[in-house]
Amino acid sequence: MTVAEKKKPIAERLLEGDRNAVARLITWAENGDTRFHQALAGIYPELGRARRLGVTGPPGAGKSTLVNELVGELRREDRQVGVLAVDPSSPFTGGALLGDRIRMESRTIDPGVFIRSMASRDSHGGLARATIDACDVMDAFGFDDVLIETVGVGQAEYDVVSAADTVVVVLCPGAGDSIQAMKSGLLEVADIIVVNKNDLPGAQRMVVDLEEAVHIRLAGKGRWITPVVTCSAGRGEAVADVLAEISRHGEHLGEQGLSALRTQKRAGQVRLAVGELIDDYLWGEAGYSQRVASELDAGRTPYEVAGEIRDAVLRGERP
Amino acid sequence: MTVAEKKKPIAERLLEGDRNAVARLITWAENGDTRFHQALAGIYPELGRARRLGVTGPPGAGKSTLVNELVGELRREDRQVGVLAVDPSSPFTGGALLGDRIRMESRTIDPGVFIRSMASRDSHGGLARATIDACDVMDAFGFDDVLIETVGVGQAEYDVVSAADTVVVVLCPGAGDSIQAMKSGLLEVADIIVVNKNDLPGAQRMVVDLEEAVHIRLAGKGRWITPVVTCSAGRGEAVADVLAEISRHGEHLGEQGLSALRTQKRAGQVRLAVGELIDDYLWGEAGYSQRVASELDAGRTPYEVAGEIRDAVLRGERP
Repeated sequence: MTVAEKKKPIAERLLEGDRNAVARLITWAENGDTRFHQALAGIYPELGRARRLGVTGPPGAGKSTLVNELVGELRREDRQVGVLAVDPSSPFTGGALLGDRIRMESRTIDPGVFIRSMASRDSHGGLARATIDACDVMDAFGFDDVLIETVGVGQAEYDVVSAADTVVVVLCPGAGDSIQAMKSGLLEVADIIVVNKNDLPGAQRMVVDLEEAVHIRLAGKGRWITPVVTCSAGRGEAVADVLAEISRHGEHLGEQGLSALRTQKRAGQVRLAVGELIDDYLWGEAGYSQRVASELDAGRTPYEVAGEIRDAVLRGERP
Repeated sequence: MTVAEKKKPIAERLLEGDRNAVARLITWAENGDTRFHQALAGIYPELGRARRLGVTGPPGAGKSTLVNELVGELRREDRQVGVLAVDPSSPFTGGALLGDRIRMESRTIDPGVFIRSMASRDSHGGLARATIDACDVMDAFGFDDVLIETVGVGQAEYDVVSAADTVVVVLCPGAGDSIQAMKSGLLEVADIIVVNKNDLPGAQRMVVDLEEAVHIRLAGKGRWITPVVTCSAGRGEAVADVLAEISRHGEHLGEQGLSALRTQKRAGQVRLAVGELIDDYLWGEAGYSQRVASELDAGRTPYEVAGEIRDAVLRGERP
């Protein structure tokens, strides 16, 4: 790399297809580095070309295997694909069983594919924000599709929901799994439900149960009815059907619908960012935790202390 | 229930051992109902008696089985035990395999045990805050031990870390699992590491690897060296060893150490609460999202918009 190239703004290098710029910018996003905000301003007008697909589901449902197969299908159409693995137990990030990991490696040497795992240390909602940022980077780089994989446990699926145009929830047949998915709120975030491992007993019954649950919830004229499709990602069967539903969801949204959806998700991103900024402002001050601790030691409840801090902030005072 | 009893403040009913008050207050905590704050003020001086134990680890490590066995051990010592299952895939909350669930049910009919699952819909850090609140409720009710189970994936383990005095990380032997645990940051939150399913091949090797990792990281005079213990929760073997390490950790902390640790975690709770309060203030206003959306539609980046909102808030203006 020449000195002149090094001096080039990173946003420009990204738009020119520099893979190092992708990696660097995602690291900045993960670290909440403010240089990211500046770079984003440089790429923001170029965003919106990539299709952003989220894949989530409980552990063991076969998310990574499905993502791997989807990447294969998309590559056959000669589309460039970025993969973001937010799930730390994903084989893409080095987790899960050795066999899976080796299978995934055939993707990592394909120059039309870029795989990146997201660190998941942060506890204040920063991961959801960083996931959106990473999608923006991959979009600006020029990937046709960005696949985001995250585990659907606790609140982790919101990382996918806040970043994706289309959310695919992957389940597999097993005792009580459809009930569990309903209870946990996973179905509510699904645009498409995939019953993976369709050769397992109970797959057809599960489809019927899920369809019923979805139809009760979402009946309404012109509304998207979440389809329930089956496949076997492990044997590479019917993965094209999943992709067909993804395309159909995109067509259903249309240009206007997609644009409205994205603005709504951007507003969610603003909300996350405001939360982080105010949190940084308050708790980034040296000794602030200590001051709060001494108020607590005086026997006041956390909510009394929190209420006063809020009031002070909203009066424009430094609490 | 007589009218007079109904009129009694809920905090009082809780302190008198009313189980309905436990359930009601935890629901308020989950919903972020402000009545909880008032009730907490009534019970706050009584808090601090219960031992708060967190159990976390990857899916399939056997967390619920271990929790179930720990409850059994504690019941043999005639201790009253509260269980909070934050993990939606926990058999305590109706997830996982039917066999597990039936085994757990023997606990649910024991009057010395109270099991509660936490809803996990919220995406703005509310679950960690609600978990702490629920521990406070169980503590005030008079449980000797409160066990919090959560899955160690993504950021979910922070729900345990922010609420517990002692954090037990459960792992089981398997390809790359110790490396995975190190990578994901799980080891860093552990006060005690349990290698469960100690009859599986690789268990001893895993113990050696983990001990090495822990000792490199934590060497230092007088500091707690995270012990690595093995057990087989499924066969009820060596669960008492886990409990012994939990007690040893409590002794190591001592009264002063525990008090300092709890104040530090209370400060974290204040931080979560302030974030929620300011978020509610901003986004609770009807039409606010819409206003933000129109700013975004004008082509400004989410961080430009977020920065201005932050600045307005800190100036004491309503953005």
